Amino acid sequence: MDAATVAAPRAKGDVEALARLAKVDMAAVDALILERMQSDVPVIPRLAEHLVAAGGKRLRPLLTVAAARASGATDEIAAPRKLAAAVEFIHTATLLHDDIVDGSEMRRGKVAAHLIYGAASSVLVGDFLFARAFELMVETDSMRALGALAHASSVIAEGEVLQLTRAHDLNLDQATYLQIIRAKTAELFAAAAESGAVGAGADEAAVKGLRDYGMALGVAFQLADDALDYGGASEALGKNAGDDFNEGKATLPLLLAVQRTRGREDAFWERTVTKGERAPDDFRRARELIICTGAVGATLDLAGDYADQAKAALSVLPAGEWREALERLADFSVSRAA
Amino acid sequence: MDAATVAAPRAKGDVEALARLAKVDMAAVDALILERMQSDVPVIPRLAEHLVAAGGKRLRPLLTVAAARASGATDEIAAPRKLAAAVEFIHTATLLHDDIVDGSEMRRGKVAAHLIYGAASSVLVGDFLFARAFELMVETDSMRALGALAHASSVIAEGEVLQLTRAHDLNLDQATYLQIIRAKTAELFAAAAESGAVGAGADEAAVKGLRDYGMALGVAFQLADDALDYGGASEALGKNAGDDFNEGKATLPLLLAVQRTRGREDAFWERTVTKGERAPDDFRRARELIICTGAVGATLDLAGDYADQAKAALSVLPAGEWREALERLADFSVSRAA
Repeated sequence: MDAATVAAPRAKGDVEALARLAKVDMAAVDALILERMQSDVPVIPRLAEHLVAAGGKRLRPLLTVAAARASGATDEIAAPRKLAAAVEFIHTATLLHDDIVDGSEMRRGKVAAHLIYGAASSVLVGDFLFARAFELMVETDSMRALGALAHASSVIAEGEVLQLTRAHDLNLDQATYLQIIRAKTAELFAAAAESGAVGAGADEAAVKGLRDYGMALGVAFQLADDALDYGGASEALGKNAGDDFNEGKATLPLLLAVQRTRGREDAFWERTVTKGERAPDDFRRARELIICTGAVGATLDLAGDYADQAKAALSVLPAGEWREALERLADFSVSRAA
Repeated sequence: MDAATVAAPRAKGDVEALARLAKVDMAAVDALILERMQSDVPVIPRLAEHLVAAGGKRLRPLLTVAAARASGATDEIAAPRKLAAAVEFIHTATLLHDDIVDGSEMRRGKVAAHLIYGAASSVLVGDFLFARAFELMVETDSMRALGALAHASSVIAEGEVLQLTRAHDLNLDQATYLQIIRAKTAELFAAAAESGAVGAGADEAAVKGLRDYGMALGVAFQLADDALDYGGASEALGKNAGDDFNEGKATLPLLLAVQRTRGREDAFWERTVTKGERAPDDFRRARELIICTGAVGATLDLAGDYADQAKAALSVLPAGEWREALERLADFSVSRAA
């Protein structure tokens, strides 16, 4: 069975439409990020820059400014820009800490910071960025936006701990798996969009719509990421493919394949995931099982459902180029793995 | 030269007077702490409780409620109590992360959490408590108190990184050393007191006086702690004595002794601190040099100066039992090492 035949045909979408519209806002956000990660203690900006300058998609702060614009803001949006920088700081802090937690060796195409600067500095610079995020939020004087991002931060940590304790569990059910990715990924997408709308003074319906959009978008993104770790629906493998399997992480594609090969491949999964005894050729075999059982296709179908939910949540917003660009981003969250 | 003859005679002071006055408030703070460290993810409250239930002095939250009371609050102080719980969460989070950074084996008389639950869980539960601290602060609706504690949090992280990069530096000057302990210790004492006063609606003079008190008290406490690591002015050694030396940490008593034995003991300090090559008997010898050169006495004298500054800062407050108890705490910060 070919996974490509399972996934329903979908609009391709893109992130460029949104990036283009938000160009001026994002340049201001980038400047803020650079300015606020400075410190008299030299290793702090050096380590922070290692990650921040490496780029990444800046998807979360993009969501924050886009939420402000999509809910109608046309003037300067000083508060949402600060909140966007804060969102990127929170995200960067969690990446620094996650790479220690997971023992990851690469991040954003570079050697992970903790391997260059040491785990101690990575822990502390993560803490620094997290605190700076809150200092930025304080400047916006929006307690509600701050509350949303504070709550997201504690939920993220809970999600990470939950994942840590259940990481190699082949019996993880789909509901718990979705709970984990909502917490560790989607909650920050939701709070990023929500805080942008709140910071722009949007009405309640728009705030809720944008929060719901962010939540569904985050789940779609993470599901597609998890599919991409096994090559997605394409023959070619991306550069980070195999990371989850090689860390023994039980993500949805793997969990579905385990269910669908029960009685046939239990010993294989038990050895490679539960016990973590992996031979060089095991990833190829795992991937084969995951693709042939339709597990990748099913994961991408589910991601597609969430992308549709995300688009539907935007219906409360005024029609226009911002809303359309957010819709395209929702489609892109899945199509990049197709 | 006997260190005990160097230190000027000082009032003994105590923490009990303050603890007694704040008993009802602190019981409420303890209940809040227990309530807000709960999570559906079981390892989180277990790990948090390992530290929180182990007690410790709860000095920082005590400062927060005392600042509210000392500046005149007589009714229920719901906001300062929440801020006090937030302060303890921030402190606990930094302890969890510091123990990983320092590779410490013991904390509050128990095996350090990261050795039981793993460094990964300790990093993440620290993040969780830090985020929960901000959620608690949001509930008080005091952006100013939140700003003080957010700023303290980034300064603490900077201080920790600075200490990390200069930890084994025998040429650390006294000004830089004081900068480090202000950042990593005193800033949270200052913000703890400041936020309590702000949360109680105190006037500007009281807020500033209590912040200055906290800052000076924090420096005095840390100096006395650093002296206690070499036994303070007493013959007997406390249970954590030797920790700093065995981690190769250049604290003031050691730095002063290095200066005062220049040309005589350079090879000894170079080997044990810079290179970190320590034999079992080296602590005894280091301690002897540190006491005989008067380095402990000088450190405690400096701590005494800060304790005096702390007391002086209280002069703007109404006279009464709370102010008096805070004065006694300032004396105690030094006398416990005498």
